[in-house]
Amino acid sequence: MKHNFYAGPAILPKEAIEKSIEALRDFAGMGLSLIEISHRSKEFEAVMTEAQQTVKELLNINDDYEVLFLQGGASTQFLMVPYNFLEKKAAYLDTGAWASKAIKEAKLFGDVEVVASSKDKNYTYIPKNFEVPADADYLHITTNNTIYGTEIREDFDVNVPLVADMSSDFMSRPVDVSKYTLIYAGAQKNVGPAGVTVVIVKKDALGKVSRQIPTMMNYKTHVDKGSMFNTPPVFAVFATLQTLKWLKNNGGVEAIEKVNIEKANMLYDEIDRNKLFKPTVINPEDRSRMNVTFVMNDEYADLDKEFLDFAAKNDIVGIKGHRSVGGFRASIYNALPLESVKHLVNVMKEFEKQH
Amino acid sequence: MKHNFYAGPAILPKEAIEKSIEALRDFAGMGLSLIEISHRSKEFEAVMTEAQQTVKELLNINDDYEVLFLQGGASTQFLMVPYNFLEKKAAYLDTGAWASKAIKEAKLFGDVEVVASSKDKNYTYIPKNFEVPADADYLHITTNNTIYGTEIREDFDVNVPLVADMSSDFMSRPVDVSKYTLIYAGAQKNVGPAGVTVVIVKKDALGKVSRQIPTMMNYKTHVDKGSMFNTPPVFAVFATLQTLKWLKNNGGVEAIEKVNIEKANMLYDEIDRNKLFKPTVINPEDRSRMNVTFVMNDEYADLDKEFLDFAAKNDIVGIKGHRSVGGFRASIYNALPLESVKHLVNVMKEFEKQH
Repeated sequence: MKHNFYAGPAILPKEAIEKSIEALRDFAGMGLSLIEISHRSKEFEAVMTEAQQTVKELLNINDDYEVLFLQGGASTQFLMVPYNFLEKKAAYLDTGAWASKAIKEAKLFGDVEVVASSKDKNYTYIPKNFEVPADADYLHITTNNTIYGTEIREDFDVNVPLVADMSSDFMSRPVDVSKYTLIYAGAQKNVGPAGVTVVIVKKDALGKVSRQIPTMMNYKTHVDKGSMFNTPPVFAVFATLQTLKWLKNNGGVEAIEKVNIEKANMLYDEIDRNKLFKPTVINPEDRSRMNVTFVMNDEYADLDKEFLDFAAKNDIVGIKGHRSVGGFRASIYNALPLESVKHLVNVMKEFEKQH
Repeated sequence: MKHNFYAGPAILPKEAIEKSIEALRDFAGMGLSLIEISHRSKEFEAVMTEAQQTVKELLNINDDYEVLFLQGGASTQFLMVPYNFLEKKAAYLDTGAWASKAIKEAKLFGDVEVVASSKDKNYTYIPKNFEVPADADYLHITTNNTIYGTEIREDFDVNVPLVADMSSDFMSRPVDVSKYTLIYAGAQKNVGPAGVTVVIVKKDALGKVSRQIPTMMNYKTHVDKGSMFNTPPVFAVFATLQTLKWLKNNGGVEAIEKVNIEKANMLYDEIDRNKLFKPTVINPEDRSRMNVTFVMNDEYADLDKEFLDFAAKNDIVGIKGHRSVGGFRASIYNALPLESVKHLVNVMKEFEKQH
């Protein structure tokens, strides 16, 4: 058995993969594969409806909001957000590479005020106590920074509409959705395969900018058509639904949060303890529960490659750190079993003994 | 066995579905599912490269062109085309609902001249002998009109750059790509599952408009990064590659064109012969080889529902016509076996006998 620590696309529940395989063979008893039937069939329409409902149920979302399943990843949301909400000025919190990309796109549509940045320390912390200009159309935050291993876990109160890129920690904890105007998440980190993006949008916030919005870039298009304006990414929506159902059957976000805390604590404790390693994020409250980044302690810096090889020999996959941080990154998303974290910790201990 | 005449998402080769199932179980011997591995792994990068190469090989495309695999469907191409190519004025040929949607988006970016339209006769023919203004930045055509059953099968010469939406007849025949500046096709009609769009773009045509183009809307972004600027729709790309390989192993577009002609002739001959039915497209050269639209002859108009029921009882799926045409539509894409067309013809004959 492989222990899959990929940062995304990432590990999915076995059950979700099995259900997807079954549907590829014969979908809903139709005698046809999931990928060769009309998205307008009542059988697929039921999938789309259930997927929307399941997101609403898991996060306790009221009817002021619509749940969308779109294409193009978070990278397309970087563009759709200002297209739909930026009239004059937007505020952005710069917590990493993805936040910076969102900022770059927003600048094409209006003024952008970066309210705070942790770039000075290679994004190893979450800036606090920043001020948001009262005339900003919205504040955009990135709740989890996959590359740098930092996370904002608080649904904070802010004086302007709040927009959050939750791509890499979506559904990892309960979220008070009522504090957000829009939440988006590329599915391939924590809730599904690549190819679909979940968007939760407050309906009455739409239609307020003066520009003309191209049809596909307009959230309203997709709200009005229940994410079926054009052909949705059928397979990705189906597999995401199976992942969400697995989550629901296992106690939902409340239960998974407990497991996620246990997994994260176990791994951070070992990193803090083990003489070979050190964390890249020092402040415990800024540490991501999804992507745990660590490097070799200075005196063992030359063991980097050797540890990667040792991990690979022990069936550990995907823990090479992003090139802009180096070292290691263990992504421990919802579907990663506690056993895999235990195994990684044991491998770290074993490696320590050898040196 | 079901006979799958859906208009899209549509029938795929059994082999492509089987290979996709295998990869969901264990991709490339990695011990992990295709949908839970990094798109940056060498194993998936090989899939993307082979998919691009196979498109190039099948259509004999030279290195002046790049093949892209994007998200968002043809509906997003309606927007990306003018974003990237419309400086002042574009020419569009209006052959149906999809062409009209493309026109609507282009108008957000500049002047649009509709060079000809067949709307006067509910799009039942392809307009001919239209003139294209020499100062148009490009001419946009829709080669196959899924709803109305018409098709442009000629790679015509035109005095401005040619852009074609080939969503529903892509890879159904050899195409002289050198006559086009850009070709796009939502995969879910003829070459794969929903969730990926194939784009063939002439590289030196890019970068000529004066506007700033958002990153994800810029073809150059995707050309420069080999369709891996952001996470591609991994499953859809893989399944499309399997479909393209099936096509290649069966003689490529030259061989499939012969089969497509045989299938289309067989069905149109029956429609023309059978006293109960009549074609909606009269001119044989305008008739689509992919979507065969027909209705009840006037004196049998009340048999509409009965024929649908009779077809369903005989395991025929997806032949209800689009609401704007009515009657029936048999989509006979590459992967639909000749046997299914024979079966439909027999069912039509049998139904005729009963009345």
